[in-house]
Amino acid sequence: MAASQTRPERGRETREAILTTAERLFAEHGIAMVSNRQIGEAAGQSNNYAVGYHFGTKADLVREIVHRHTAAKERRRLELLAEIKGSSDLREWVSCLVRPTIDHLASLGSPTWHARFIAQADTEPAFRQIVIAEVIATPSMRQNLEGLFRLVPGLPEEIRRERGDMSRLLIVHMLAERERALHEGTAPGRATWEATAVGLIDAIVGLWLAPVTSTP
Amino acid sequence: MAASQTRPERGRETREAILTTAERLFAEHGIAMVSNRQIGEAAGQSNNYAVGYHFGTKADLVREIVHRHTAAKERRRLELLAEIKGSSDLREWVSCLVRPTIDHLASLGSPTWHARFIAQADTEPAFRQIVIAEVIATPSMRQNLEGLFRLVPGLPEEIRRERGDMSRLLIVHMLAERERALHEGTAPGRATWEATAVGLIDAIVGLWLAPVTSTP
Repeated sequence: MAASQTRPERGRETREAILTTAERLFAEHGIAMVSNRQIGEAAGQSNNYAVGYHFGTKADLVREIVHRHTAAKERRRLELLAEIKGSSDLREWVSCLVRPTIDHLASLGSPTWHARFIAQADTEPAFRQIVIAEVIATPSMRQNLEGLFRLVPGLPEEIRRERGDMSRLLIVHMLAERERALHEGTAPGRATWEATAVGLIDAIVGLWLAPVTSTP
Repeated sequence: MAASQTRPERGRETREAILTTAERLFAEHGIAMVSNRQIGEAAGQSNNYAVGYHFGTKADLVREIVHRHTAAKERRRLELLAEIKGSSDLREWVSCLVRPTIDHLASLGSPTWHARFIAQADTEPAFRQIVIAEVIATPSMRQNLEGLFRLVPGLPEEIRRERGDMSRLLIVHMLAERERALHEGTAPGRATWEATAVGLIDAIVGLWLAPVTSTP
């Protein structure tokens, strides 16, 4: 820490260090398994209460980590949507669902922890509403889904919602699996983020085009 | 507790009560958020150490809960596989992937907690190997996947593995979402397990039949 730094700069640096460390520890050990104290120690804070002081409760900290990545993904999706405006190619709309998170992960360098962190937060009862509010209920996501729905006009509303949920779950959990495999060195052939994107887009297009079997 | 019960009967009843209670509390609050002591109290055990005494560590307890449901699902899949032996209809093989867990959930009555418990255990770093060993690396699952692979002979090995992972993640996490929605009264139209099965089978067939885009 340079002596010339101002107090707000130091505060910002401390907050960044805590967020980065917390995301890594949550991804490695599970969100509920890691204490504020462990995060503070691993982030080089001598004060036991640094995490609580800067971020409040664990839910607040989780929200802040999710939020930290939201702007980049949101900006990227809006860019991609602008490029395909009015497109009648389903694959392009599915690509806009998949690419922003993958492009963001690719931009973070190696290793990343974000995909595993999001998969856990999305599955834990205490945190899933935070992920839904920050990641799914965004303007770009609504625009993306509306564009996609226009290309499958025959699908009943409830099937659209069901396949929307399936698309989200596939993206969240496949990215977490791929990130883990990359990290543990057990990744199969498709070991790049680009190949992961293509595999997901192929599968999700297939899912949206699948005929609907009626049920009683 | 009837006075005529033998000691082994009482022991078995206590273990069953602990397993049922633990699964419910894990599903509601997250596996890592619930202590052995809370489980013991909710299961009516006056001894603070009852859970540890009967099941050892939390990982042992998680394994025992997973294992408790394995036999029924495994038996059901082997039955279904026997019925479609030699079939060249991809839908039937996908149905064998999806149905055993759904039939099991339907047989448990309402509400169930098992789907949410499994989704969490599958996502938590500390427990996912337990789920993989108990649920995925079973004889019926290998037989099921081999039968399915025979019907998509053009798919490269790594794409088969990728789509196998996608199928598993869709089943695990969609069942957890549907179970939660049923429980919270927010389930959409497709609110039966039967309709859930059909929706998953449609989508997973679409996913397996999707053309593969080659990547550099």
